[in-house]
Amino acid sequence: MTAADPQPKAAATSGDGFFRSRWVDRPAHVTELEPDALPQGFRAAGVHAGIKPKGLDVGLLVSDRETVSAVRFCDNALIGAPIAVTSEARLEGLRAVLANSGNSNVADGARGLETAREAQAAAAEALRLDADRIGLASTGVIGRQLPRDALVSGARACAEALGPDATDFCTAILTTDAGPKRACLEVALPSGPTVRLAGQAKGAGMISPRFATMFCFVETDAEVEHATLDLLTGVCVKRSFDRISVDAQLSTSDTVIAFANGAAGVRIEPESPDELALGEALDALMRQLALEIVADGEGTTRVGRVTVRGALEHVEPVARAVADSPLVKAALLGADPNFGRILQSTGQALGGGTPFVVDLEIEGLQVVSAGVVLDLDADAWRTLERAVESDEVDIALTLPGEGGETEVFFSDLTHEYVTINSEYST
Amino acid sequence: MTAADPQPKAAATSGDGFFRSRWVDRPAHVTELEPDALPQGFRAAGVHAGIKPKGLDVGLLVSDRETVSAVRFCDNALIGAPIAVTSEARLEGLRAVLANSGNSNVADGARGLETAREAQAAAAEALRLDADRIGLASTGVIGRQLPRDALVSGARACAEALGPDATDFCTAILTTDAGPKRACLEVALPSGPTVRLAGQAKGAGMISPRFATMFCFVETDAEVEHATLDLLTGVCVKRSFDRISVDAQLSTSDTVIAFANGAAGVRIEPESPDELALGEALDALMRQLALEIVADGEGTTRVGRVTVRGALEHVEPVARAVADSPLVKAALLGADPNFGRILQSTGQALGGGTPFVVDLEIEGLQVVSAGVVLDLDADAWRTLERAVESDEVDIALTLPGEGGETEVFFSDLTHEYVTINSEYST
Repeated sequence: MTAADPQPKAAATSGDGFFRSRWVDRPAHVTELEPDALPQGFRAAGVHAGIKPKGLDVGLLVSDRETVSAVRFCDNALIGAPIAVTSEARLEGLRAVLANSGNSNVADGARGLETAREAQAAAAEALRLDADRIGLASTGVIGRQLPRDALVSGARACAEALGPDATDFCTAILTTDAGPKRACLEVALPSGPTVRLAGQAKGAGMISPRFATMFCFVETDAEVEHATLDLLTGVCVKRSFDRISVDAQLSTSDTVIAFANGAAGVRIEPESPDELALGEALDALMRQLALEIVADGEGTTRVGRVTVRGALEHVEPVARAVADSPLVKAALLGADPNFGRILQSTGQALGGGTPFVVDLEIEGLQVVSAGVVLDLDADAWRTLERAVESDEVDIALTLPGEGGETEVFFSDLTHEYVTINSEYST
Repeated sequence: MTAADPQPKAAATSGDGFFRSRWVDRPAHVTELEPDALPQGFRAAGVHAGIKPKGLDVGLLVSDRETVSAVRFCDNALIGAPIAVTSEARLEGLRAVLANSGNSNVADGARGLETAREAQAAAAEALRLDADRIGLASTGVIGRQLPRDALVSGARACAEALGPDATDFCTAILTTDAGPKRACLEVALPSGPTVRLAGQAKGAGMISPRFATMFCFVETDAEVEHATLDLLTGVCVKRSFDRISVDAQLSTSDTVIAFANGAAGVRIEPESPDELALGEALDALMRQLALEIVADGEGTTRVGRVTVRGALEHVEPVARAVADSPLVKAALLGADPNFGRILQSTGQALGGGTPFVVDLEIEGLQVVSAGVVLDLDADAWRTLERAVESDEVDIALTLPGEGGETEVFFSDLTHEYVTINSEYST
C-alpha cells in the first residue's frame, strides 16, 4: 500500500488527546491522527478464534514490504513458547506479528513449542512469507494448554481479514485491559517530509518490566536502518515500559516489536536531526502507552510517580521499593498522605546501617528533611491532603550521594485488583 | 516473686490449644498453661495513656530479679528512636521493656530520641532500676510525633499497675491485630525439673522480617547464660519471624527480646539435653507466634507455605518471590489453583537465561514437572481445587541443584488488607 492509503483524520490534540499524562510532553513536531490508523504499508486484523469464550482473541499485523525490525523480550527464566520461537526468527527483519490473548502459551514444553511453530507456519503460508519473518506473542492465563487449532485457524482468518486500520488488532491483544491502548502520529521531520508512527499496546496486570512487560507493537513508514531502529527502541523502552509497575510481577511473555518499512519514501539518516525527531516521537509514544498501562492497571484509580536522586547504587532499589510497597500503594488509593510508609520502604531498600539522610517532597511540598519529618502547619497539611487527591501524584526522594536519578510510575492497590486476581482463572 | 506465684491452670491442649498450625508440632515435653500467665519473677501491666483514642496503648513488662537478655532488631536503614536508644542499653542484661502502640516513634530526629530517653528514665525511676536496664519498643503510624507526656505518664502508671499476668500488656502492644498473641508453656526438662516459658507478640501489617519484624517478648524463669540465650533466640528467630511475610514490608521498629531470670532455680547447662529441650520449646513457641502473625495478617483469610529446595543461591529469592507476589496471594484468597503465577514469580526470581527446570507440588499433588505443566485428569483437578480451599496451603518447589532448602509462610491478599491500609492514617 502506498499513497492510496486512506488518509486518517487528525484527532483532537486538546487535553483529552492521546498525550493525557502531565508526565509526557507532546513533541511540537507531532500531530495525532486517528488512533487506530496505521502507517503506510501496514495492515492488521483481529478475529474471534475461540480461545476466549467471546470477543476477539487472535490478531495479526503485517507489513506489505521488506521491513526492518527491532525486538525486546522480558527477562524471566520462564518464557513463553512464542518468545522461544520468535527468538529463532529473523529478529532484524520481521514482517508480521501474530498475537493471541485469552491463554498464554507457557510451560507446555514441546507441545507448546509445536503449537507456536504451527501457528507461525500457518500465518507465513497465508501471507506468502517465510516462517522466520513472523513474530509471535501470546498472553492470558499461564499454565493451561493453548488450543492449537483455534490459534492456527485464527491466524488464517486474520490473514483473510487484513485491513488498513488496527481497530480489531488492538482489541484482540487485550486481556484485563479496560480498552485499547494505541495511537497514530504524524511526525514532521526537520528535513521537511512527514512520516507516520503508530503503536498498539496491551497490559494491565503482571506488570513490572525490566524492559518489556506487556505487548507493544510499533510501526513507522519511515526507512530506518536496523541499528538505528534497534537503538531507538532500546532507549525508548528503558524510559517507558522499563519504568512502570502495577504489581511488581514480571511476565513470561512480554514483547516489544518495532517495524520500519520505508513505505513513506523517507529515509532517516543515522545521527541526523531527523533521527532525533523520530526518536522524540517514539519516546513520547512509548511513555504515554506505558503510562496508559499503569493508569489501566488492574483496578487502578490513581498513578504515582516516584523520582529518586542520589547515589547511583541506591536510586533504583529505592524507587522500586517505594513503587512496589503495598502499603504505599494502598495509601495512594486512599489519598492518604501517609508518607511514613514511603520512608519505611526507602529504609528497607537501603538496608540496616545505612545513614537515613533522606529528603522527601510530595507534589513539591517538602515533608521530610535529612530523615526527620518536618512540623507542617495546618495550611501545609491541607495543601498536602489536596495534592494526593489528584489522578497523578508526584513523590520525590533525595538520598545522599550523586550520579543517580530514576523514576518509576506505579498504580495504587485497590479492591478491584484483589477481586480481578482472586477470580481470574476460576 | 518465687513459689508464692499463683499457679496458672493448664489450658486445653486439644487441637484448639495454642499450637494450632499443622506446621508446628507441640513438643511432647511442653504443657500449655493459661496463655496470659508469666514465668516466675515476671510482672506486667498495660494502661490507656492517650496515644490511641481509646484502649490500652502503653505496656510494661519487668523481671523482679537480675536477668539475662538477648535482643534482635530489624534491619531497616530507618529505625525507630526506641531501637536507637535500646541499642545503647545493657542488651545482655535488660530487666524490663516499655512498649507503646498507636504511634511509632520514628523519623522525629532529636525530639524522638529525647522522647525515648525520657520514657526510659521515667520507667527506670518508677522501677528503681538503672535506665540502661530498660528496653523500649514503639509501634503504630510512622511519621507523626509520638506524644511524649502520654508515654511518660503511661510508663509511670504501668509501674504502679504491675501484676502477675500479661493480659493487659498483651493488649497494649497491639495495633491492627485482631487479638492478643501469646502463650505460657511449662517445659519439662530431661534432667527432671520444669521451667516456664512465655511469649507475647504483636504484628499484622508491615511484615517481612529479615529476622524480627514485629514485637515478640519472651520470658523464662530458667537460669540461662547470656551466650546460650542469645544463641537460642537467634536460631529460633531465623526459623520463625524471619520466615513470614504479610506484605513484604520490613518495619522500622521490630524487636525481639528474650529474658531469663532464673527464678525457677533451675540452671540450663550449655550444650546439655536441657538446653535442647528448652530450645525446642522456644522454637515451637516462636514458630506458632510467627504463624499467628501471618494468620492474623491484615485481612488474612488463608495462609500459604512455600517450601523451596535446590541450589542454595536460588531457594531464598524464589521463596520470597512466590510468597510476596500479589498475584499468588490473590489466588490464595480466591482458592484458585492458578499455579501459573507460582511459575511466573519463580521465573522472575531466577532471571532470564536460567534453565526453567522446576517441579511444583501443591498439597502433595505434582502439577509441574521439569518446567512443564502436567496433564491432570478431572479427579486430580478436583483434588487440587479442594486442597487450595483449606486454611493452610502447602506449595513445594524443587529447583535444579542441591544444598538449599527454605520455607516462607505468607498471607493471602484481601479486600480487607486494602481497606485497612487505604484508611489507616486518615
